[in-house]
Amino acid sequence: MHILVTNDDGVLAPGLLALAQEMRKIGEVTVLAPDRNWSASGHVKTMERPMRVKDAKLADGTPALACDGAPSDCVALALLGVISQKIDLVVSGINPNANVGHDVTYSGTVTAAMEAVINGVPGIAFSLDSRPGHGELDYGPAARMASKVAAQASIQGIPAGVLLNVNIPNIPEAEIKGILVTRQGLRVYRDALDARKDPRGHPYYWIGGEFPSGVDEAGTDFGALNSGHVSITPLQLDLTALSAMETLQKWNWE
Amino acid sequence: MHILVTNDDGVLAPGLLALAQEMRKIGEVTVLAPDRNWSASGHVKTMERPMRVKDAKLADGTPALACDGAPSDCVALALLGVISQKIDLVVSGINPNANVGHDVTYSGTVTAAMEAVINGVPGIAFSLDSRPGHGELDYGPAARMASKVAAQASIQGIPAGVLLNVNIPNIPEAEIKGILVTRQGLRVYRDALDARKDPRGHPYYWIGGEFPSGVDEAGTDFGALNSGHVSITPLQLDLTALSAMETLQKWNWE
Repeated sequence: MHILVTNDDGVLAPGLLALAQEMRKIGEVTVLAPDRNWSASGHVKTMERPMRVKDAKLADGTPALACDGAPSDCVALALLGVISQKIDLVVSGINPNANVGHDVTYSGTVTAAMEAVINGVPGIAFSLDSRPGHGELDYGPAARMASKVAAQASIQGIPAGVLLNVNIPNIPEAEIKGILVTRQGLRVYRDALDARKDPRGHPYYWIGGEFPSGVDEAGTDFGALNSGHVSITPLQLDLTALSAMETLQKWNWE
Repeated sequence: MHILVTNDDGVLAPGLLALAQEMRKIGEVTVLAPDRNWSASGHVKTMERPMRVKDAKLADGTPALACDGAPSDCVALALLGVISQKIDLVVSGINPNANVGHDVTYSGTVTAAMEAVINGVPGIAFSLDSRPGHGELDYGPAARMASKVAAQASIQGIPAGVLLNVNIPNIPEAEIKGILVTRQGLRVYRDALDARKDPRGHPYYWIGGEFPSGVDEAGTDFGALNSGHVSITPLQLDLTALSAMETLQKWNWE
């Protein structure tokens, strides 16, 4: 199995290193990732400019490739031929924050896996649920879980058109209660406008506020993390709100 | 009704002007849009840098605001307080290309409307289906259709958590056969790697290839456009692949 490893934090992020090291135990690994941080940068297809792919090296000496495009661009370039060897699986992460609820529409980690699926290759996104006050980040348990999920995905086959969004709690491995297959929950964003003046008195704006919360509901990604479980949510790219179609049919379209 | 008008092509794009002019007939309009093109740039929340909002002017003299963030940033900033007056509806467009099938995950036009919905405000994305060989772009019919859809949305109320993705064919107004409520169809991307050498002999890569096609199926966005109809697809932000959940439950998680 030939596995492409990417992320949205940049090729030198420790989460990518941990993921690549575990993936190497179950397959052949190629790393092609952004040369900088692309968090919350969404599903991108860079068409207005060309992109560069340069040699890089992970902290353990593993050869890697760094690209000046977005995570989804890295996946697209790899699958379009920058990587000549056939790719069987794309894994993305490990992101240092959970990607739950609406996060999946913003997340470079998740949209990299989306891009794989659009190109007909299985894709899995891995994120560590590190909340303020949860202590040091430990990518080890998440990376080992990633290996388990990727191995199962390889054996069982992910349903066509579906990507897996995997979130792992940042707690000691022995305390992880197991894996739950979940649905996407509801994020509660707590963004606030932080308006400032520059040294010349002109305004500029940060999106500030507090760390996002979520609706703690059983069966959801956020709920699973809250109860100490790994959450695996199968995601599709069909966003049709089927229940709303009937409502809209009744509107006055004359 | 106070309507925020934005887009992903930049504040000076003709599609935004056409949309703003029609929206002014049914409500009070504020324009806050990116200062440059953000096509296919996805759902962005810019957190690594602050953003600027500057005065601009549309071609007809209408005052507008230009922001150096993405379309979804424009909507977030407006709703977080850069625009002090309450916003009742966010409209985005008119994009000079259709946004159908998987396009909705990349599209700045659509993700601007997503951002509105996440912030509890109705959002509608408008795109013109201008394919190669379809002749000159005429935003007039699309803008008048946008006015009709926005008025209905205001009267009837869009179901909570749902945005509308509206695509209008670029054909003479008299030939438009009507409005169809559709589901999201399947795009067929025909991207290809275009590898080149710079003047110093170093490689760089364009995402090239041909204009995307789609699966021409009745009941879908792409199918509706192909048959000369306006397509209205209600979209939700829950991407859970419900049918895949059962399959995943059966994997070996021990």
